[in-house]
Amino acid sequence: MAEEVKLFGFWASPFSRRVEIALKIKGVKYEYKEEDLTNKSPLLLKYNPVLKKIPVLVHNGNPIAESLVIIEYIDETWKHNPILPQHPYDRALARFWARFIEEKAVPALRNSTLGKGKEREVAIGEACEHLKTLENELGDKKFFGGEDIGLVDIAANVLGIWFGVFQELSGLKLLTEEKFPKLSKWIHEHVNHTAIKENLPPRDKLIEFFSARFEAASK
Amino acid sequence: MAEEVKLFGFWASPFSRRVEIALKIKGVKYEYKEEDLTNKSPLLLKYNPVLKKIPVLVHNGNPIAESLVIIEYIDETWKHNPILPQHPYDRALARFWARFIEEKAVPALRNSTLGKGKEREVAIGEACEHLKTLENELGDKKFFGGEDIGLVDIAANVLGIWFGVFQELSGLKLLTEEKFPKLSKWIHEHVNHTAIKENLPPRDKLIEFFSARFEAASK
Repeated sequence: MAEEVKLFGFWASPFSRRVEIALKIKGVKYEYKEEDLTNKSPLLLKYNPVLKKIPVLVHNGNPIAESLVIIEYIDETWKHNPILPQHPYDRALARFWARFIEEKAVPALRNSTLGKGKEREVAIGEACEHLKTLENELGDKKFFGGEDIGLVDIAANVLGIWFGVFQELSGLKLLTEEKFPKLSKWIHEHVNHTAIKENLPPRDKLIEFFSARFEAASK
Repeated sequence: MAEEVKLFGFWASPFSRRVEIALKIKGVKYEYKEEDLTNKSPLLLKYNPVLKKIPVLVHNGNPIAESLVIIEYIDETWKHNPILPQHPYDRALARFWARFIEEKAVPALRNSTLGKGKEREVAIGEACEHLKTLENELGDKKFFGGEDIGLVDIAANVLGIWFGVFQELSGLKLLTEEKFPKLSKWIHEHVNHTAIKENLPPRDKLIEFFSARFEAASK
């Protein structure tokens, strides 16, 4: 049966890029539909009526939302080149760290650059703690997943290029080589990994896109 | 090999009760360690140094945190009486709804009763929307999982008894039989399910315990 795989995404979103990384790792061909987030398509709203957000993967007509849920679906559907480890305990740890990044690190990193006043101060402290936790978890491994990228590395993609852009635009200097040598080395390995390199949005375009958001936030 | 299964929990927490429900479904014997949340044990802090929270499951010395992560681990380790569906698409939907409950419904339900002023008003509106979404998703099924309980039903355990207690203490009348007949029927089925019934904290004790929190929040 010919497979039909469609991804509704947005070029500057790390969340839809995560799904693209997973599809690239599996070598799954897909049709990409760019969404205008200020004027979402009727199809996106039909496929994700609850959250009304990208990314949405549609596989043979069946829609799935939420990047981490989609990645597990991709890993269970196309079993070669596994993204999650095989042993239940290692899988639980990968899920734990992916959730940690999603629920703790990502909001703190966002507010440490885009937040205002007291909220921003608190977020900088939290972001620093979370980065220390991740630096410690990474240790001397090449990737969070070991010798190759896995679920946690994909979830952490926001550190790969986006947070650098956010730091540049906000003047924050938190994730530096001096303070976080292991994460900095990981960023280098991450952005140069085949499945990721060909999938990164151009940095100058991200700077241009997010500078408008930073300007709006500073008002 | 003799299995060693320990659960660090707190009697009034729906999150550690979730893990107990999963263990009961599997018929896994475990040693339960009650935590004093005002004075957490060194063992809990050792096993969950990142979040410092219950529940933590320790299986043959390996600790796992986060109730939904633990439930997936239990389901992958003891494969009889499955908690997640078998097909990748059904698994993705179960994960989507479990996350929806965790990230959207639970915070809104909490703030709709424990919140203050404007924050509470906003949360009541959100909680109402999320309950409508869940009422619609449940439809005419007995459980979210179909004929028997599954991941989503376990994640939704906060609706089974806790939210009723929260409503009583705050005077909110949102989740009623008139407004949400399907969820109300589900609550009845849920609290009477064998794996859940024997695992519910006594309602009068919950009232007593949470009334102190409500008093503190109203100050």
